[in-house]
Amino acid sequence: MEEERYKRGWEKLKQIDGEAGEKVIDSLKDIAPDLGKYTIEFPFGDVYSRPGLDLKSREIATVAALTALGHALPQLKVHINGALNVGCTREEIIEIIIQMAVYAGFPAALNAMSIAKEVFEARDRNRLKE
Amino acid sequence: MEEERYKRGWEKLKQIDGEAGEKVIDSLKDIAPDLGKYTIEFPFGDVYSRPGLDLKSREIATVAALTALGHALPQLKVHINGALNVGCTREEIIEIIIQMAVYAGFPAALNAMSIAKEVFEARDRNRLKE
Amino acid sequence: MEEERYKRGWEKLKQIDGEAGEKVIDSLKDIAPDLGKYTIEFPFGDVYSRPGLDLKSREIATVAALTALGHALPQLKVHINGALNVGCTREEIIEIIIQMAVYAGFPAALNAMSIAKEVFEARDRNRLKE
Amino acid sequence: MEEERYKRGWEKLKQIDGEAGEKVIDSLKDIAPDLGKYTIEFPFGDVYSRPGLDLKSREIATVAALTALGHALPQLKVHINGALNVGCTREEIIEIIIQMAVYAGFPAALNAMSIAKEVFEARDRNRLKE
Amino acid sequence: MEEERYKRGWEKLKQIDGEAGEKVIDSLKDIAPDLGKYTIEFPFGDVYSRPGLDLKSREIATVAALTALGHALPQLKVHINGALNVGCTREEIIEIIIQMAVYAGFPAALNAMSIAKEVFEARDRNRLKE
Amino acid sequence: MEEERYKRGWEKLKQIDGEAGEKVIDSLKDIAPDLGKYTIEFPFGDVYSRPGLDLKSREIATVAALTALGHALPQLKVHINGALNVGCTREEIIEIIIQMAVYAGFPAALNAMSIAKEVFEARDRNRLKE
Repeated sequence: MEEERYKRGWEKLKQIDGEAGEKVIDSLKDIAPDLGKYTIEFPFGDVYSRPGLDLKSREIATVAALTALGHALPQLKVHINGALNVGCTREEIIEIIIQMAVYAGFPAALNAMSIAKEVFEARDRNRLKE
Repeated sequence: MEEERYKRGWEKLKQIDGEAGEKVIDSLKDIAPDLGKYTIEFPFGDVYSRPGLDLKSREIATVAALTALGHALPQLKVHINGALNVGCTREEIIEIIIQMAVYAGFPAALNAMSIAKEVFEARDRNRLKE
Repeated sequence: MEEERYKRGWEKLKQIDGEAGEKVIDSLKDIAPDLGKYTIEFPFGDVYSRPGLDLKSREIATVAALTALGHALPQLKVHINGALNVGCTREEIIEIIIQMAVYAGFPAALNAMSIAKEVFEARDRNRLKE
Repeated sequence: MEEERYKRGWEKLKQIDGEAGEKVIDSLKDIAPDLGKYTIEFPFGDVYSRPGLDLKSREIATVAALTALGHALPQLKVHINGALNVGCTREEIIEIIIQMAVYAGFPAALNAMSIAKEVFEARDRNRLKE
Repeated sequence: MEEERYKRGWEKLKQIDGEAGEKVIDSLKDIAPDLGKYTIEFPFGDVYSRPGLDLKSREIATVAALTALGHALPQLKVHINGALNVGCTREEIIEIIIQMAVYAGFPAALNAMSIAKEVFEARDRNRLKE
Repeated sequence: MEEERYKRGWEKLKQIDGEAGEKVIDSLKDIAPDLGKYTIEFPFGDVYSRPGLDLKSREIATVAALTALGHALPQLKVHINGALNVGCTREEIIEIIIQMAVYAGFPAALNAMSIAKEVFEARDRNRLKE
């Protein structure tokens, strides 16, 4: 049932993206709540919930793709956090991004590395506050 | 030393891509052997040889990126084989490609799935011959 | 309910893409039937079934996007047929593609125009057979 | 004659893009006035002035393409305004962008939706001032 | 006057692209002759005819861009011929393509190199016939 | 030897990109110094140091590609400076960008022209300080 997909998706989004993901959905509520609903239902309710590939590998794939695409830096920011949340190390994330210099060119990799730097610095500042 | 990077790269390329990778280098020998040399040295000698991320995860990242890029289907063909060679299952490869429908759109995922279909069918035919 | 989305999507896909769309789903049944299921459910069951934009305008948007993307020519072939099926004229399709020269460059437009030529010629051959 | 194309283009640009379009041309006058001239002559004097597709449909195509491209958010901002100016409703624009999640992926659609949000909020602030 | 732009463009297209360019325009005459007209007038009549950059440098830029784009291999084929026609050597063309591995990734460069190989082999076959 | 590639690359990077290039490498030292090392070794130590194409032509190719890619504006900023440093005139850079409207569309060209405008204005301000 629809509500099951939505519920499963919302749980999966919180598990992976945490607050950053909730912020994305929230930013849509005034302009296009249905896009937020689809974002929860299809990527998270359907795809990320599938058993055939573990969550850590899924985030590796997503960080790689968002780096290669070039135009998806806001989403890359969310998913670098997501990758760390599901068990990727910072070193592994840096390795994925370096590898994308081969497939998508150095500009895509360099711009993604700037995002990784922002994410790590923000997480360090948050850690200091605790 | 240069020869070390080349040697290490050539070994890594054979380990991952096997014959398909050797064919790519070979196709360059008349027109641009240096591009073949760089392909061996940088992606394989430098990047894939790095310890920070395991080979299976590296191929997951590459299959994801090549699917998302849209214009890299010949290379995707080589690397779907590569992913299988280093321990990804067919199911895992299919999962990566389905996931790319979220990030790069359904066209990119559908075109990548056609390539996966070709690769699996070719491997099945080869298996029958043994 | 899930079956409702699927049923609604299948009806919408037949309405827009006709046989060409059914062929796409069919080509997936051996390798990744779930990607076929998602293609029916999300694009067609969810998005194309939404009331806020008429089908003809939706196909105008899709033909434009698939032209601009550059890597989606197989899908463009399906949707040029789809656009004609829902009321776009050949002239209107040609106008969209010409307009894409402005936003995505002449290569994208020229390659899309080759696809349009193929589609129109195939439809003319089919018409002659009747 | 050249001046006719330029004159026709300038009128069409003002009709569709209004002030936003004039600002683009103006920003070019010190660095590359000829690019401004070509922008007026070819997209607007030639393409948008063609009779075979109505202006509203043209803007639907453009909003779709600029969303799908991913790197054209400044131009998308101009054309979301343009689409509203020639008779698209806000709902229709939101529908186009949601639909692009299917063809170009969720990142492209989400980033475009942020732009639509900015445009609508700016237009609301302007309306309040009157 | 319009006819001047067209005439100037047609002369420039023949000068650079020769037969390959004429074939492109010819392939459009049944489906979208206006796209052929615009292709002659804007790229060739306006841009390539500008004095600020020499023809050889223009073709270097075009070969680089068409390699980087990834989806423009048919046009790359035309312009590798064009680059040779206006004074680029085969070596220079190979250098541009190798360089694109840095900015657009190895897949884009490898696919472009396959096109260069086809072009050079075709030109060698033609030379033997004389 | 490795150190030779690095040393040659560092000299080439300073020759072309000057301070802007050094800043890029420096920004990587805390997060991914190896990406900085590869950026020096492969693009500059290997590719830009090759004899088959002169530096000015190489920068023409790079400015064209970075404009066409759409997602590489930070790198375009570095290389517009680089192109000026190795002998391109401002006029020639503007010509390349205008030409990219043909191959990558007007959005890519317009966004690149904004970057060129920033670069030229910054260089003018620096000149005034001397």
